[in-house]
Amino acid sequence: MTITLYERVGGSDDHRPSPFSWRARYALAHKGLAVDEHVPVKFHDKQIIAFSGQGLVPILVDGETVVHDSWSIALYLEEAYPERPSLFGGPHAQELTHFVNAWADQSLMPAVFPLVIADLHANIAEDDKAYFRETREQRLGRSIESFANDRAAFEANLAKVLAPLRARLADRPFVAGEEPAYADYIVFSILQFARCASPTPLLAADDPLRAYADRVSDLFDGMGASCRRLERLAA
Amino acid sequence: MTITLYERVGGSDDHRPSPFSWRARYALAHKGLAVDEHVPVKFHDKQIIAFSGQGLVPILVDGETVVHDSWSIALYLEEAYPERPSLFGGPHAQELTHFVNAWADQSLMPAVFPLVIADLHANIAEDDKAYFRETREQRLGRSIESFANDRAAFEANLAKVLAPLRARLADRPFVAGEEPAYADYIVFSILQFARCASPTPLLAADDPLRAYADRVSDLFDGMGASCRRLERLAA
Repeated sequence: MTITLYERVGGSDDHRPSPFSWRARYALAHKGLAVDEHVPVKFHDKQIIAFSGQGLVPILVDGETVVHDSWSIALYLEEAYPERPSLFGGPHAQELTHFVNAWADQSLMPAVFPLVIADLHANIAEDDKAYFRETREQRLGRSIESFANDRAAFEANLAKVLAPLRARLADRPFVAGEEPAYADYIVFSILQFARCASPTPLLAADDPLRAYADRVSDLFDGMGASCRRLERLAA
Repeated sequence: MTITLYERVGGSDDHRPSPFSWRARYALAHKGLAVDEHVPVKFHDKQIIAFSGQGLVPILVDGETVVHDSWSIALYLEEAYPERPSLFGGPHAQELTHFVNAWADQSLMPAVFPLVIADLHANIAEDDKAYFRETREQRLGRSIESFANDRAAFEANLAKVLAPLRARLADRPFVAGEEPAYADYIVFSILQFARCASPTPLLAADDPLRAYADRVSDLFDGMGASCRRLERLAA
């Protein structure tokens, strides 16, 4: 069967800021499933993905099956490929991974987003900027540039939001324990989003959470390395 | 074997505000283990628990075994009584339950505590108030009464912190899924702490999270009901 993954791209085809697309990438890699075709989708590229009946990436096309939404993709892969390494480690762990997903999307992402949105806007494709600005400013109720004024407050908020993750990772390499699982791809995806969006590191060089992000980035032959592009450019 | 549980009490022996003591209670009940003796421990009662080699409750004494710290007690019970209902649902779910534990302690508790601390102080035993005030004000760096000035900000912060829990519980009765597990006792314990500490409800009467707290409170023959005492007094 042919596997196609529709993913968000930013300023170039290897610049992939979407945390949700990264979750799908890592889920496929964890299952050992090769992607035959990666289709890059810019923010305003709605016609490319209209076949899925909705407007968001990632979208997985596995043979005749079309699945959108990163969590639904993970559930689909777990069910369709039960003989391959489990993304969750059983039904009870799957339930709790959904809590991690909710935490990442409802707490971590809102804490990270204000710190990188201006750089993200600066680094996406020129023909995507107007659409990105209009949709994001409408959703957030303020201008992209206005977030820079409150940077110190957003940094203080992020420090608070990260406290549970720090406690969890104090004595073990991964959120899922000794070995990585989908819970890690969820959490990593937000740190990866920041790394892709902005050359300003979210975390200090000696921060254990940065070492954690590197640990997940290094999995599957360093699959996450492309997002260090901006970091390298800034160095 | 004889099981003894050392638990925090507030203004009377059936007033138990400690979330950590509630976790131990529910863990024992989930395992179907009867507690032969509940030993009430006030905040300043350090000599009663000195035998454990540290100063915090809950403490479980199971025959010759002494275990303190609610998470360690849960791990001990899971290992010592493997034939009884699992608190986690397997090793992978146990790992992720530890993340829920970290979230409850590092995010939810700090968001709830400022909203109830003044009422908690008012409702504990008279001979406990000086110790409670001194230790808490030292830890928090401000007076117990000062929190009332920022109530609106603390309520807004709590609403943000609760967002992942709301998302998780939108389509299912328990954090752990269709059936409750230790992850629920963790989360519930903080909501129960608020209910025990203050007659002012943390959540609106029609809030789904209040229905969730009632759902866990009703388990094990309504074991959590004693904390509705203040709510009833205020009604």
